[in-house]
Amino acid sequence: MTLQNQRHVNTQRPGGMPVHRYRPFPPIDLPDRTWPSRTITQAPRWLSTDLRDGNQALIDPMSPARKMRMFELLVRMGYKEIEVGFPSASETDFAFVRALIESDKVPEDVTISVLTQAREDLIERTVQSLVGVHHANIHMYNALAPLFRRVVFHAGKDEIKDIAVRGTELVMKHAESWLDKTVIGYEYSPEIFTGTELPFSVEVCEAVSDVWQPGDGREIILNLPATVEMATPNVYADQIEWFCRQLTRREDTVVSLHPHNDRGTGVAATELALMAGADRVEGCLFGHGERTGNVDLVTLAMNLFSQGVEPMIDVSDIDEIRRTVEYCTQLPVHPRHPYAGDLVYTAFSGSHQDAIKKGLEALEAEAEEAGHPVAEHPWEAPYLPIDPRDVGRTYEAVIRVNSQSGKGGVAYLIKTEHKLDLPRRLQIEFSGAVQRQTDGEGGEMSADQIWSAFTAEYLDRETPLKLDSVHTSSTSGGKDALTVGIYVDGELRRLEGTGNGPINAFINALADLGDPRFDIRLLDYAEHALSAGGDAQAAAYVELTVPSGGAEEVLWGVGVDPNIVTASLKAVISSINRAR
Amino acid sequence: MTLQNQRHVNTQRPGGMPVHRYRPFPPIDLPDRTWPSRTITQAPRWLSTDLRDGNQALIDPMSPARKMRMFELLVRMGYKEIEVGFPSASETDFAFVRALIESDKVPEDVTISVLTQAREDLIERTVQSLVGVHHANIHMYNALAPLFRRVVFHAGKDEIKDIAVRGTELVMKHAESWLDKTVIGYEYSPEIFTGTELPFSVEVCEAVSDVWQPGDGREIILNLPATVEMATPNVYADQIEWFCRQLTRREDTVVSLHPHNDRGTGVAATELALMAGADRVEGCLFGHGERTGNVDLVTLAMNLFSQGVEPMIDVSDIDEIRRTVEYCTQLPVHPRHPYAGDLVYTAFSGSHQDAIKKGLEALEAEAEEAGHPVAEHPWEAPYLPIDPRDVGRTYEAVIRVNSQSGKGGVAYLIKTEHKLDLPRRLQIEFSGAVQRQTDGEGGEMSADQIWSAFTAEYLDRETPLKLDSVHTSSTSGGKDALTVGIYVDGELRRLEGTGNGPINAFINALADLGDPRFDIRLLDYAEHALSAGGDAQAAAYVELTVPSGGAEEVLWGVGVDPNIVTASLKAVISSINRAR
Repeated sequence: MTLQNQRHVNTQRPGGMPVHRYRPFPPIDLPDRTWPSRTITQAPRWLSTDLRDGNQALIDPMSPARKMRMFELLVRMGYKEIEVGFPSASETDFAFVRALIESDKVPEDVTISVLTQAREDLIERTVQSLVGVHHANIHMYNALAPLFRRVVFHAGKDEIKDIAVRGTELVMKHAESWLDKTVIGYEYSPEIFTGTELPFSVEVCEAVSDVWQPGDGREIILNLPATVEMATPNVYADQIEWFCRQLTRREDTVVSLHPHNDRGTGVAATELALMAGADRVEGCLFGHGERTGNVDLVTLAMNLFSQGVEPMIDVSDIDEIRRTVEYCTQLPVHPRHPYAGDLVYTAFSGSHQDAIKKGLEALEAEAEEAGHPVAEHPWEAPYLPIDPRDVGRTYEAVIRVNSQSGKGGVAYLIKTEHKLDLPRRLQIEFSGAVQRQTDGEGGEMSADQIWSAFTAEYLDRETPLKLDSVHTSSTSGGKDALTVGIYVDGELRRLEGTGNGPINAFINALADLGDPRFDIRLLDYAEHALSAGGDAQAAAYVELTVPSGGAEEVLWGVGVDPNIVTASLKAVISSINRAR
Repeated sequence: MTLQNQRHVNTQRPGGMPVHRYRPFPPIDLPDRTWPSRTITQAPRWLSTDLRDGNQALIDPMSPARKMRMFELLVRMGYKEIEVGFPSASETDFAFVRALIESDKVPEDVTISVLTQAREDLIERTVQSLVGVHHANIHMYNALAPLFRRVVFHAGKDEIKDIAVRGTELVMKHAESWLDKTVIGYEYSPEIFTGTELPFSVEVCEAVSDVWQPGDGREIILNLPATVEMATPNVYADQIEWFCRQLTRREDTVVSLHPHNDRGTGVAATELALMAGADRVEGCLFGHGERTGNVDLVTLAMNLFSQGVEPMIDVSDIDEIRRTVEYCTQLPVHPRHPYAGDLVYTAFSGSHQDAIKKGLEALEAEAEEAGHPVAEHPWEAPYLPIDPRDVGRTYEAVIRVNSQSGKGGVAYLIKTEHKLDLPRRLQIEFSGAVQRQTDGEGGEMSADQIWSAFTAEYLDRETPLKLDSVHTSSTSGGKDALTVGIYVDGELRRLEGTGNGPINAFINALADLGDPRFDIRLLDYAEHALSAGGDAQAAAYVELTVPSGGAEEVLWGVGVDPNIVTASLKAVISSINRAR
């Protein structure tokens, strides 16, 4: 051996990309910056723009029903400022704002806001959308950045500033004539703040404030968008601290952040900019929005929570939040997304699993000594930054089946040998069952043993429920009706139910039994054909909440049958039969 | 109206979560920190741990074939340090390291590294895995963090330090007796650096260095893992700057970062820690690894690129990188993932689209004036941080079909009315065709017009290829054989081919024609049934590279047929017929 007797030769070579086309972002001259020595000790004011910036950047924008689901979720989570649309740019947005107001959906302590450009006709239309609401913010923006002045507007600084000033006057004029019942606030965004000369941003914002006249407790919101993330996150913090120092009415100004995530550092930029003095954050649940999206409000809130800072938002059922957002946006949350992804409370490595096991045992012992439940004990465990149970999740040790090594894991085996394409969360759940068995049997399982474990866990249980027969009918435009013959604790019963689709009808039919064991709720559903041809079988997978000893547990069920409806009902039964 | 005459009442309320269980991370006392005034001016040394930390945290770990694909990708991109496994912990990892070495797959300028714990039997096994390789780093870790000392090892600081010192001695001893042909380097990781008292980390690292004796150009790599991300990213930078200042052999020490992403700020923490003085970064392509994953090497490299800093890595075909990683990991890259997601070079908002259009026109004019192609001109465009073409992508303006507003967009319409569930990238591609048509017709299209545009674009083209008949046969375990009757430029031909599956067989049969128009490569494939029942139709979607005027373009094709094989071949033909 040569114990490497010369400096490791750095053999890295240029990658051949046209790097000469790009320039570094100029740093901010702020040697006496104070933010690097600060910490975040309280939550900012939050604004959700899921229904505006988030919705605008979906492949399929939300239907009115999806928008209402999203609005209700945001209210339930505790957001008090919600941007609900861009009414002058979109008829649907206008109609949605009217629907919210006219059906009295906006709670008394929630302020809705609407975005507008600075043209008079658009401002008037925007104001009209708000008639009758109790509290609203009007959010106006115009482009200040030199690139936009040069290539989009062909305008000088004075013209651009005039647009902002005149627009603010018009907002006040039209609000006065239309909104006699509304408490109106004002938000102004110099677009794109991160790409604009700082002194010019300050100049325009000061001129806008001169019109709005904050003071004596009357606030103005100055929102500073990183519409495109252009530099390392410390630069945004420098920009915010620099800006805050120049404001003449700092006390009556709410400095607001609107970060995007083009460089993958939107969360960091927000956190550093809060340390730099900002008061308020605009973003979206799980970071939707143009391109890489707005900053993710869920991660920001959970980061505060994990540091013992009250987030002022309720994330205690993160799966329900995620399901609703996935339903509304028709886009997935990534399996590694912080706090919410399928994989983030798993441990794959044996040494991680061992350390976590010992850590959890120590925690239980300490809690017992302190005389309170573990759920009340200060959290500290290897590799788990928070207690998964605090967001309604569970820790899962995902084991490798050694005998299958080199062929992938359990899911691979079940897919290749038995054609079942298990949903990811079901894969993780089943790994727990495999682990319990290998713990008893010395860490190795054959392919047959794994399949036996799977059928025993999901396919073979026949109590308390076993399906006997299924009849369905549906009328076009109407509900599905279902009649099933089913053994309940061994006794054949005939159940009837209706619903949106056969699974819903079946759940309703079970609920009619009045038996608390069957009071279930559907969380997720997937199905696929097992093979082509006339003798094809279908597999169905359902994720349910199932009553379990006074509480609820989340369980998957699996059903296989030539008839897809029957497969689905079998999956529901599989889940119920698995409950403790 | 009330022009909000009192400070906006912050009506936010506590979310009801058990925030009292958590404590803030203690800040680092470093008032004279220098990193906030620095910028990153050169790429760090990179280590990919895709085959170790990344692979270990997959639901289905990579098969040997997938591992080899990943290794070849990493080499092609330019990584010169690649962690290839944990050979003492896994027979498959040991076998893979042996396969790499024995089949001579490691280029002369690439150093592989392997991870080991500090036990003698494991160290010896690790060293044995490396016999015959030209350059290797042995990477040893042990747990220093107080939580691990207390709940996992029940050991004091001295015992823990002894493990590190003794382990380093054993690495040297066994390397000397086994590795006479290898240039050996050494990497030590104090685990979990971010959760360990800084002075203790320095003390152990100094003791390890005393054994390894860096100096006179012989380096040691000290790798400082944020195995769990525990604080805002500035804190990691403070920890790194603090650590670097204490080292007695800074010149001969490579300070290495190993960040994870539990708080969604892994990229930021890495960038700030590089500003704080670190030399080297460990991570994974698109951020795989335990839980939320390791830091994403692609985003880090592209962030450098976008600032005009040579990344020393080739990301010029980001889709190919993404496809390979998705194949190897069997996990998706999120549609909003920076630089690589499906949606990150799209603009949905009309004002964004307008600004980008004007920006691109200005850029072309400037390039023409400067007398060089746009692809050589300094990049600056609204809302697009880089030129998508620099990574092999294209900008797409995704339009809303106004007549469908409130019902979702084009994809929604095609799905609900025609049962075609278009893959996301196909949706984006088709929006370009819709836009070309609406630009000509005034921005509105009826549902019928959209469907006509779709059929004209994907389903109705009959030149140069039109399918006449299909016969397939497959033998168990063997290849599929295919005979097709097909019109080529109007002349009926009979083609035969074999391959892995009928699409592959068809592509091979087309290639045999020797016509450059049919020299295609399959990138992606999806299919689904259109309805249940005996008269069911199937839809197939393929993404191909197709020759186009001397270059290649990526095009989707769509086929619909009662027979799934025929639908697939029609989809291939659809793509080819769409080429310019």
